[in-house]
Formats: sequence, C-alpha cells, structure tokens
Amino acid sequence: MRFKLIGWLETTCQELEKHRDVLEDIIKRANEEVLIKGAKDVEEAAKITNWSIKNNLVYVTIESGRRVRAHAAIKRLQKYMAQRLGRMKIGVRRVHCEEYVVEVEKPVERLEWLKHYDKVVGVEDLGDRVRIMLKDLSETELERGDVDRLVKLITPGLVTMKEALARKVGIIVRASQRKSMKFSEDPTEVALKLGWIARFPGRGQWYYLPPFTALLNAIKELVFEYVTRPLGFVELMLPKLIPLEIAFRARKLQGEPGGMYYVCAPRYREKEKYLPFRVKAEITNVLPMRELKDLLEDPGYILDPVQCLPFYQLYRGKVLRKEELPIKVVDVSGPTYRYEAGGARGIERVHEFWRIEHVWMGLRKQCIEIRDQVLDAMCNFVDKVLDLEWRVEFAGDTFYLAEDQRIDEDVEIPEEPKFELQIYMPFKGPRDSKEKDVWLACASFNLHGTHYTKNFSIKCASGEPLWTGCFGVGLTRMATAFLAQHGFNFDDWPEEVRRRVKHIKGLPGLV
Amino acid sequence: MRFKLIGWLETTCQELEKHRDVLEDIIKRANEEVLIKGAKDVEEAAKITNWSIKNNLVYVTIESGRRVRAHAAIKRLQKYMAQRLGRMKIGVRRVHCEEYVVEVEKPVERLEWLKHYDKVVGVEDLGDRVRIMLKDLSETELERGDVDRLVKLITPGLVTMKEALARKVGIIVRASQRKSMKFSEDPTEVALKLGWIARFPGRGQWYYLPPFTALLNAIKELVFEYVTRPLGFVELMLPKLIPLEIAFRARKLQGEPGGMYYVCAPRYREKEKYLPFRVKAEITNVLPMRELKDLLEDPGYILDPVQCLPFYQLYRGKVLRKEELPIKVVDVSGPTYRYEAGGARGIERVHEFWRIEHVWMGLRKQCIEIRDQVLDAMCNFVDKVLDLEWRVEFAGDTFYLAEDQRIDEDVEIPEEPKFELQIYMPFKGPRDSKEKDVWLACASFNLHGTHYTKNFSIKCASGEPLWTGCFGVGLTRMATAFLAQHGFNFDDWPEEVRRRVKHIKGLPGLV
Repeated sequence: MRFKLIGWLETTCQELEKHRDVLEDIIKRANEEVLIKGAKDVEEAAKITNWSIKNNLVYVTIESGRRVRAHAAIKRLQKYMAQRLGRMKIGVRRVHCEEYVVEVEKPVERLEWLKHYDKVVGVEDLGDRVRIMLKDLSETELERGDVDRLVKLITPGLVTMKEALARKVGIIVRASQRKSMKFSEDPTEVALKLGWIARFPGRGQWYYLPPFTALLNAIKELVFEYVTRPLGFVELMLPKLIPLEIAFRARKLQGEPGGMYYVCAPRYREKEKYLPFRVKAEITNVLPMRELKDLLEDPGYILDPVQCLPFYQLYRGKVLRKEELPIKVVDVSGPTYRYEAGGARGIERVHEFWRIEHVWMGLRKQCIEIRDQVLDAMCNFVDKVLDLEWRVEFAGDTFYLAEDQRIDEDVEIPEEPKFELQIYMPFKGPRDSKEKDVWLACASFNLHGTHYTKNFSIKCASGEPLWTGCFGVGLTRMATAFLAQHGFNFDDWPEEVRRRVKHIKGLPGLV
Repeated sequence: MRFKLIGWLETTCQELEKHRDVLEDIIKRANEEVLIKGAKDVEEAAKITNWSIKNNLVYVTIESGRRVRAHAAIKRLQKYMAQRLGRMKIGVRRVHCEEYVVEVEKPVERLEWLKHYDKVVGVEDLGDRVRIMLKDLSETELERGDVDRLVKLITPGLVTMKEALARKVGIIVRASQRKSMKFSEDPTEVALKLGWIARFPGRGQWYYLPPFTALLNAIKELVFEYVTRPLGFVELMLPKLIPLEIAFRARKLQGEPGGMYYVCAPRYREKEKYLPFRVKAEITNVLPMRELKDLLEDPGYILDPVQCLPFYQLYRGKVLRKEELPIKVVDVSGPTYRYEAGGARGIERVHEFWRIEHVWMGLRKQCIEIRDQVLDAMCNFVDKVLDLEWRVEFAGDTFYLAEDQRIDEDVEIPEEPKFELQIYMPFKGPRDSKEKDVWLACASFNLHGTHYTKNFSIKCASGEPLWTGCFGVGLTRMATAFLAQHGFNFDDWPEEVRRRVKHIKGLPGLV
C-alpha cells in the first residue's frame, strides 16, 4: 500500500524565502526523525520527496507506506514546523492536500462504491493493484481519517454480517410439536370484517379496535407474567424520538437509511413566521407544501425502529462495576416504526407496531445466559400458555447491522447473534411452503457483542468487555399469529387468554 | 361588496369571429337569465359589461355583487356557452381570470394578512371601503373558492376562540380544600438526583426510569379503575403518526404549524439509491445531511399532538344511528408530541409525553353529560385517591382551534369548550403566585361542538347534529405533580398508590 500526497503548509510569513535554510533543516530532520518515528520498517514510513517555497506556502510531496501514512505525516510535519518556526514568531496556519494518490494491492472489493465519495477523482486498474486518485482534501478530511476509512472499505476480509453467518442462517434450532389448527383464514380480512381492526390512510398503519386491543393487552400482560418479571427485567420508559446523532453512533442510520421515518422540528419560535403559511392555507384550503418545507428544520430525528437505542445512550461513557451487572430493563411504552419498501399487506407486516422490548447489558457470559433464559421462557410460554405451533430459526438479518454493512474488526461478534421465534400461519400455506411469512417472525433474541458498548463507550471497571442483548416481542404480530391459529371464536381460545380478555365488545357504526 | 373580473373563455374554434352572432345571443341570454338566477336582488347578481373575440378566446368583463359572484358567474357562463356552442361541435376548454378586483365595505380586519396570498397584487384604501386587486386566477383557484375564503378572512365578526371566550377564561369553577404539603422541592431536580429520571439529548425528552415508570403506571391503572372503566370507555389503539391530510382537515395544521413535529418517509424503494449516502457516511464518519435530504419525501405526516385525531378519521363519512350513541373510547398506546417554543424546563413541560386520551361522540346533550361525568369522577379521584390539592379552571386555549384561528360560522361552539384540572406545585411559589405552572395543568375536559363531525362529515341518521368531546390525563404531568406535593418518600404516599407501586428500585450505574 503506497500513499503520495501533494500539498502545502500555510505560514504567517509572506517572505518565507528568507528562511530557506531553516526550512531545509526542518525537512531534513523531518525525513530523518519525525516522519519515521514509530515505524519499524522505514519503507512503511513517510518521506518528503520534494519541496518548494511560494510566498507564505511550503509545498511538499510526501510519499509513504502504510505505517506513517502521508496524511498523518503532513500533520506531523505541521506540528514540527510550527515548533521550529515559532521561535521566529512565524505560525503555521493550516495544511491542505491538493492531490492524493493511494495504491492498494489486489484483491480489493466494493471499488465502485468509491465514486460516491466526492473527493475521489479517478480509479485506475494497474494489474496487480489499483490506484485511487483524490483531490482537495482539507485539514478536516485529513484529520478525521477519511483516507483510512476509504482504504478499509475496499479491503476484503472485512466481514459483513451476511458473510459471517452464511453457514448457519436458516437452521431451525427448536420447534414445537405439530398442533392441529382451528382456523385457516386470513386474520386481516376476518378482523376487518368483524370490526376488530380498521384501515388507516397512513402506509402500513391500522386501527386496532377494542377486541384486538383487548387480545393484544392480554398477551402483553401474560408475557410480563411468564417471562419479563420472573427473569427480573424492570420497566422503564424510553424516548421514541431519536436524535440522528444517536442513530448514527449506533451505525443504524448507515445500515438501512431507507428503512425508517425521519422527523423535522419546526424552524422558528416566532409565531408570525408561520402566518404566510396559515393565510395561504386558509384562503386556498390546500396545504402549502413549499411554504411548510421552508418552516421546518433539517431532519433531526428518526422514529425509533428498534426501541433499544436510547438504552445505550443512557449509559454512554459510563464505567460500571462488575457487581452492578447484569442490568435488565424492559420498555413497552409506545409504538416503533419501520419503513417497509414492499406494497400494502395485512397486519402481519406493518410500519407502525407495538413491541415489548427487553434489553440487557453485562459480561459476555451473563449476556449469553440471559439470552438462553428468555429463549427458554418464551418458547415455553408460547407453547403452553398461548398454545401455538412455533419454531426458532437461526436468523441472518441481525437488527443492529445491515446484512451488507461492514463489521468493525475490533468489535466482538457473537456466534449466534439472532434467533427468531416464528409462528405458523396456516392461511399462508402448508408448513413447508417457501412463501413469505408462512412462519411469521413474532419475537427475536439478539446478542450484539460489543457493538453498542464500543460505539457508546460503556466500560466495565474490571476491564472485561461488556456485551448487550435484546429480546423483542412483536405484540401486533403475536396477536395476529394467535388469531391465525386460534381464530376469532372467543370460546376456542386458551384459558389464560380468555381469563384476561373477559369479553369482546366492538365499536358501533363501523361494520 | 363588488366584484369585477376580466378574463377569457378558451374555445376549440380558431375562427370564432364567424360565430359572432351566436356569441352575441349567448351573452345577452346570460345577462338576462343565466347570471341572475337565484339572486333576489339583480344588483347583487352578475353582469357581463364588456366582451370581445380574439382568435379562439372570448374575452369578458364581469361585474357583480355578492350573490352571484363574478368568479361563479364566469363558470356559469362557461357551462352555458359550452351547451350552446356544442351544437356546432365547438368546445369550451377552460376559463381564466386575468384581473380580479374586489371591493369590500369597511370595517375589515386582518387586511395585512392578504399579502401572504400571492395572487393579491394590491390593496387600496378607498375611505369607506377597501379595494383588493388579484391577478392570474386559474380555473383551479376560481373553482375552489379562494376569493370567497379571502373575503371571509378579512370580514369582521368571524369570531376567534380568544374573543368568544374572553369573559370566562381564568375563572376557577371548582377547587379542592387546601391541603398541607409534604414537600417543597423541584421534583425534576430531585428525580434526577435519585435516578428516577435522566436527561436525554432530544429537546424536551427525558428517560423515565423504573421508579418514575412504576408511579406513572400506578396512576394510569388507578385512573382506569376509578374513571375510565366505570364510565364505560373501551380501549383501542390509535395510530400516532398522522397523515398531513387528516391534520389539515381537522384544521390543526392551520392553527399552530409551529407546535408540532413533521415526519418524512424515505423516497426510494431501491436499496442502491441509498448507497452514495452510506458510502459517504462510512468514509467521512459524518452524517451527509444534503444527501439524506435528497433521499426523503416531502413531509407527509405529523406526530400526533392531541391523540384523538385518528378517531374522527375512523368515523369519517359515516352515518350513525341514534341508538348507537354515545360512543366512548380510550387510548393509552403511546407518547404524543408537542413542540414547545420555550427553552429547556423540567419534566412538567416536555415535548414527548404520555397521556390517557378519552374521546366520545354523541348528541349535544350526551356529550355535555359525559363531560360532566368525567369531570366529577376525575376531581373526586384526584382528591380522594391521589390526595392532591387541585382546582378546575375555565381555559381559553381550546386544543382544537388556535386562539387566533377563525371559527367557521356554521360550526356549533360549546359554551364551555375547555376545563383544565390544575394541581398545585408548591416549589413554584405560593398558591396565589402568578408564576407559570404554579398550578400545573394535568388534565383537560373538552367539548368540540360540531367542529370535528363537520370537518369529517360524520352524521346522525336522525339529522341531529353530532358533537364530540375528549378528556386527556397527562400522565407525565400527573406523576410530576404527585411528586411535587407528596415527595419521593414511598411511605408518605397514599395507600392506593403504594399498593400498586409496591417497591422502588432504580437502575445501577446512573447516579
């Protein structure tokens, strides 16, 4: 890997030529000491191969290997030059890179992605390696390490989730006995007909009317009784509107930007700013969209798609004592949202949905153990109390990283990041059908390794790495799957559910 | 009120001059019959005062009074002309208004608002009246009645809520006995110190940690037990993400556009559209805002600020039988959001909050009766069960219309649209202090008259007007006010609350 940078350092002295001898010495010392420090192999360090003076600028060409990369070298040079020239009251204002050439040995991957980074002006295939040409990198871009991340991005061996898990995905790790089905219709259609749900104009949104709500509440209470409380999860209320910074830090935004909803706050405090919009709306009786857009800030939030993001933010930067671990919480305080690109479907696949979200944090061993406990308890509950036919699949779509998203090499990845509890939907076809959602994913059991604790800088005082995990029960789906197997006849339902629902009463005037 | 329109009708015949005699007759008959039909006073009808032919266009000048207004007249003329010319296979494609002058007698109001409607090119003061000049009104603007709404907007006597209620606002209609306070500190500060809540980076958002959540849940259950269920409200789950069309129809958007959050869906289904954004984010480690904005649709939703909007949409266009009334529902399925322009405050005034929202619909008498019942039950509950010092104030900020928003004259407005249940916050000052939130509004009892049933076209089969009402219990505020009076010592709390909270357990590692 070779780097070649052409750029300049800007000083405060317009007659720099007068100090040529000092600069000559600076360059010499830089090449002999400053730019090779820390590199075992001098070949992999950096070297100034050319330099010149123009007014207050020192032009340099720096070539390097991978150890002291040219963009790091120019920053080192700046610091050293500032020290030396400082004695003569000359400052070094900033550095700038006019041209940057990076050569990387093959094999490389995702090369075509680079065109989306606007500093890249060309990519050349040189047979055994590729040459990437960049232009106009300011101090900001040099310092924050854009070039390093660019090289990382095209280097193979950076596993994505899809690759890491390919061998195991799809394996059924547990399953209930085969049960006889009482119902074979589409629960969405029947629920609509009976007035248990109603259509809402928003994409993937529905009204859940009293009978459906009663069932959903019953399932929620039962999960708390059989799983949540016995395993010691304590309830809190997590914010549902997530500042972009948190979603970005969690690398959620980078993974699936098209999979969520974005939120804008109004731009102005002063009421009179909104008057033109209001007047136009009152006179035309049509929403003035252009005016509205001017009144809003840039998107500043997402609607939480995964429900646990605020938990990691809560502990951001904290150091936990070992005896405080594990921490187990549960949130069921409101809907979360995912944008699904597919067309309109039934209530088994919606944009707005309710979920019981369990999150835990602790040492690796603790986290795996908790995952096993919730998995056991939940399977048992679904089998015995809800009396549903279910299975657990090893899943590949871990929710915290998109399938094609790069895994940081310094993050510990669990061997079994996600199990999915799936419930059979008889109306979709036979059990072995390959149709989508014949087995509907109703809950998932996730281990995140150190993904979140690293990104949110959460540490254990003992120095051991902290893991997190989460277990979400999709209440909307759970109720749908329940109806798909048990049907809408209250008397056919399992006793524990009947005891909590008590009676079914719809709203008048709807069906 | 006088209207003068200069415009043209476009026909499909390029040699219209050949049919001058027919057109002459059309204009004559229009003036004698078509344009005066329905107006008792001919002076208030419309008259074509000038006309000419140019290629395929018929230019007209129409002057009118208030009965058959000039913009309605040109549409009548179009229809009549199409009938007559149709016999000769000549069509009338469209009409257009080049200039429109409206003269309105004084007094007028809000004249300065008109500059925000971009068709207005001038306003002149003529002493006893004002002249408003408009330009270039297309068929769309003429048909949807922009000019009528413009005149309405400046006509005085169109009451706003503020004016309608001015005399009564601020009156205390009920109050509890004075009670002795156990606590005098700011609950936000103490809750933070004890780890009952935690700060969250979003504006006006907080974490409600297990002790606070337990208290909030207890209050929720108690309200259900003492108020909601005894009065026959049935629970449903209403969507929380509201399409703009619904908010606009409810006239919520026009009232306080700066008081809510707006939501954008992603623009594209194809994953590859998001690649440039993802690559730039991965390389720069900075959120690429410009790219993100290009990937989003225009705002299409608001986060529900009032929680009951979807209820009216549920019954949109329906006709209800009298015996089905009243309908009473309750929703407690998730947070709602208001954008508050003020700076950072404690948990008594937040952007994201949880509420029990009761909504009802029925005949006028039924709705008032239900309002009285919930008011009685709630006051009794707050007094006896929560043992808080409270009062009920006649409030002016009805939530369904902004204070300065025009009331449609054909909407029935209740005499007492809003009562507010306020709870004393000792840390803010003495009971008679004028400081904000010394008496914190924790619940409100609202009657909307026919505002929603008219805008959502909901009717009773008997022909009687349908009213709606709602009663919201701010759970976040209720818990805050509870802590402000009773403090954080579990043993000091009323028995019913203690029985439900059971024990207080915080999260480790936070305080």
